[in-house]
Amino acid sequence: MKIAPPVRLVLLAAGSALLASPATAQTDPLASWNDGPAKQAILKFVGDVTKPGASTFVPPAERIATFDNDGTLWSEQPLYFQLAFALDQVKAMAPRHPEWKTQEPFKTLLAGDVKGVLAQGEKGIMPILAATHTGMTTEEFTKSVAAWAATAKHPRSGRLYTEMIYQPMVEVLSYLRANGFKTYIVSGGGIEFMRPWVEKAYGIPPEQVVGSSGVTKFEMRPSGPVLLKEPKIEFVDDGPGKPVGINHFIGRRPLLAFGNSDGDHQMLQWTAAGGGPRFMGIVHHTDADREWAYDRTSHIGKLDKAWDEALARGWTVVDMKKDWKRVYPFEK
Amino acid sequence: MKIAPPVRLVLLAAGSALLASPATAQTDPLASWNDGPAKQAILKFVGDVTKPGASTFVPPAERIATFDNDGTLWSEQPLYFQLAFALDQVKAMAPRHPEWKTQEPFKTLLAGDVKGVLAQGEKGIMPILAATHTGMTTEEFTKSVAAWAATAKHPRSGRLYTEMIYQPMVEVLSYLRANGFKTYIVSGGGIEFMRPWVEKAYGIPPEQVVGSSGVTKFEMRPSGPVLLKEPKIEFVDDGPGKPVGINHFIGRRPLLAFGNSDGDHQMLQWTAAGGGPRFMGIVHHTDADREWAYDRTSHIGKLDKAWDEALARGWTVVDMKKDWKRVYPFEK
Repeated sequence: MKIAPPVRLVLLAAGSALLASPATAQTDPLASWNDGPAKQAILKFVGDVTKPGASTFVPPAERIATFDNDGTLWSEQPLYFQLAFALDQVKAMAPRHPEWKTQEPFKTLLAGDVKGVLAQGEKGIMPILAATHTGMTTEEFTKSVAAWAATAKHPRSGRLYTEMIYQPMVEVLSYLRANGFKTYIVSGGGIEFMRPWVEKAYGIPPEQVVGSSGVTKFEMRPSGPVLLKEPKIEFVDDGPGKPVGINHFIGRRPLLAFGNSDGDHQMLQWTAAGGGPRFMGIVHHTDADREWAYDRTSHIGKLDKAWDEALARGWTVVDMKKDWKRVYPFEK
Repeated sequence: MKIAPPVRLVLLAAGSALLASPATAQTDPLASWNDGPAKQAILKFVGDVTKPGASTFVPPAERIATFDNDGTLWSEQPLYFQLAFALDQVKAMAPRHPEWKTQEPFKTLLAGDVKGVLAQGEKGIMPILAATHTGMTTEEFTKSVAAWAATAKHPRSGRLYTEMIYQPMVEVLSYLRANGFKTYIVSGGGIEFMRPWVEKAYGIPPEQVVGSSGVTKFEMRPSGPVLLKEPKIEFVDDGPGKPVGINHFIGRRPLLAFGNSDGDHQMLQWTAAGGGPRFMGIVHHTDADREWAYDRTSHIGKLDKAWDEALARGWTVVDMKKDWKRVYPFEK
């Protein structure tokens, strides 16, 4: 007989003999992980830092965990989901911008030629990001992101983008929080692009999101004060920007950090350089069937130097294909 | 018989009849406040937003409270304490800088003429801030602040600067946290100047401090990675910068905000513009005997336009002399 988890919990609670150790009353906190070295490393690390009296014990206030987002907590193929948002927004905004019919890169995009836009490089992408991310109030932008997150579908899976999160990583986040950790996102993605949906997706509140940002400006209007999003980059939270962002927003060094690409290299180095026990993890995209397979030569999520250092220093490299029982929450 | 608070708590806990309502088992959470309109406004607001089922109820996750620091949580006279730190640091660093003996503004300062330095305006102050706040790693700066906070004494009180915090405001912070609020500092002061000591002083952790900042840069040294503090201003968290900083760091609008000067005006306006119940408070410095008395014409902590708006819109203005039983924790 297969017993459903809630029923099992009730049965365990009723059987007092089984309650000698609190752990036995719990289901596996990392149920979507195969029982390999990566899962064992996570369990051991959390056990070490939470064991009262141990030399490895770390007080709860210092249990800071930072996670990259794209490719670490959700997919990032065939293009960064924030870029998919921007491209979708251009189509949604087009009726109010008749001039785009003759103006590049909008003309190419509205003709359905996404590849043609991407082939233009920064010249193609920057005007699209500016048009869809700036020249509006923060509240207007938040609404546009929330509407997109609630409806837009990924071209391959046909699922909402916000469903394409990694179930095993969601379990790591929950497991850490249950053990007194404060979980943060530290992403190259836009801070205001992530905040509207990450609480529901990952259980991470807006105030624990660190990301790239543009300049905003306070303006008093007759209807009241607003913050205007200006077309000027303020901070790029990627590569060497990640330790800077962590220091700026959090002011403590992470005890645990997880990334998937060379853009996370310095965050992992910064974490490793702290004293005492530290956990550095990398999600390696090895599963072309269930997700995507890419590393050293990929344009998106290139994993090369950080991987070499992980191998040399014994950081935990998660093999998505081997280590994960399932990738997305919607898989059976 | 006067019963000491801990004894009183034990007596109350023993008398089960008194425990019908949990509130009766508590001592006054705002014990240093006189029973005037300011205290009543704070108690009523917290009661309103925490009452389950009430139309004014706000979920705990949205209970964000932001506090200015200088003049709102601790004193700011006769000069901003961070400036006192900088002046003290110049003296401490002087042996390693023989060139300062002939170089302004250091020469004037090392001769003991603080007024002469301040009279030079920005030309006098900026080189001192640069010399004491930049050109070092974040860890080195943190150490210098911690050492100063543990030893430097205020010229008038002879007490540590970190003892010159307002006991009634410390009680407000604790009371809010006990009612599910997340308490933040949002100060024009330097974010890295505040972080080393605010947790002990106010119970506010480093990751809940928003402040002004300089640019920092990640650098890999043979001994490991460091963050270098560069002599370049990144963000000024004052006036219209406060709503920007709140949006950037927290990503939620405050439910309650407290300030003391026109530098807090936009933070109060931004808070007031949110829907539902909001609390806007101003600490008015009216007590020349126990603290200082200043407002509309002061160079430090000028309170003019924000005061007018507070009066017009019914925001809570705390009269330090009338509303506070004591100012500092060290008073009997």
